[in-house]
Amino acid sequence: MDSLYNKIKGSNIVWQKGLVTRADRNTFYGHQSGLVWFTGLPSSGKSTIAHGVEKVLFDKGVKCYVLDGDNVRYGLNADLGFSEEDRRENIRRIVEVSKLMVDAGLIVLTAFVSPFKKDREYIKRRFKNDNFIEIYVKCSVEECIARDPKGNYQKAMRGIIKNYTGISSPYEEPENPDIILNTEKLSVKSTIKQVLKFLKQRGWLENISL
Amino acid sequence: MDSLYNKIKGSNIVWQKGLVTRADRNTFYGHQSGLVWFTGLPSSGKSTIAHGVEKVLFDKGVKCYVLDGDNVRYGLNADLGFSEEDRRENIRRIVEVSKLMVDAGLIVLTAFVSPFKKDREYIKRRFKNDNFIEIYVKCSVEECIARDPKGNYQKAMRGIIKNYTGISSPYEEPENPDIILNTEKLSVKSTIKQVLKFLKQRGWLENISL
Repeated sequence: MDSLYNKIKGSNIVWQKGLVTRADRNTFYGHQSGLVWFTGLPSSGKSTIAHGVEKVLFDKGVKCYVLDGDNVRYGLNADLGFSEEDRRENIRRIVEVSKLMVDAGLIVLTAFVSPFKKDREYIKRRFKNDNFIEIYVKCSVEECIARDPKGNYQKAMRGIIKNYTGISSPYEEPENPDIILNTEKLSVKSTIKQVLKFLKQRGWLENISL
Repeated sequence: MDSLYNKIKGSNIVWQKGLVTRADRNTFYGHQSGLVWFTGLPSSGKSTIAHGVEKVLFDKGVKCYVLDGDNVRYGLNADLGFSEEDRRENIRRIVEVSKLMVDAGLIVLTAFVSPFKKDREYIKRRFKNDNFIEIYVKCSVEECIARDPKGNYQKAMRGIIKNYTGISSPYEEPENPDIILNTEKLSVKSTIKQVLKFLKQRGWLENISL
């Protein structure tokens, strides 16, 4: 199945090793690099939590960056829509950009709906033996509809937006995420704390005092 | 023409502003972020110089990263070949990844043949009003053929590789690059020095002592 995602078309492609390795960066920066993947319904709180975590980490000197659905679609994935094929390509490119950024020494925090199990399984396989954390930002559709800061649920319900996750396209819940954050019960602050604590436990922030 | 490259297909896309801005990163890291684009024939020395510059910058504490033709084609652009359309999409994605990395506070050094003027003009427009430096790594085709570390020129001359720049596909020389590095005359060390000096002059490395 992976060939669907990553088929190398160019001839004579070899991975070029630089003079500065990822290990060099991890040592110099005092923390591991890796990918923290947030998944959940639109308006569940993924982006808010990811940006909150980024702010705390940045202030502590951690090199990090949020890749966000809207931002990535604004540039890199501007040519992609919401068909199944385009959603898959969207995920594939995000994963590859994440790999480059992780190689550059960053903790990458991604906030994408990523509703399909097979896509998330692909991400895990691509990050096999690498620093990877999956976080399920849990929130009921009813609550997400009530929040709906961009009015997209309303538009989806009126059929103006097609294939909208939670309304006209399914969200498949993760079975074994590393963390579940229920944003109907927890405050933003406490979800951020939970993520940071987990990063620390995993040993990503060895020389960083929180 | 830009619509060829960047047409936003998704509905309701807005740029999400994070809590940590690029300006915050530039201040905290003590240097500007920006894109240094190396262009030149295959085997002209782009990658060697870019990695050399990266090594010096990294050792000085500058957050930087080399995006390299082969590396990017290994993952992100693995689905692209060497047709005109694929080459354009290759460049477009590299530019967008660079924008994300520059937003993340890095100095990005790219080493891609990028043989077509219109593609390089596109890059400049996309980085308009932003930190951008174009470096032409100049070397005669004859010398590049003599170097040919991967044997690709030989394969291209025997028709095994199609559309190979310098042999079966044209290289359009830049008219107004910021720097020209003639690798037939200069040592690697002196080309690296020249790039660093230019970055300093441009004010990218304000708080970094070289």
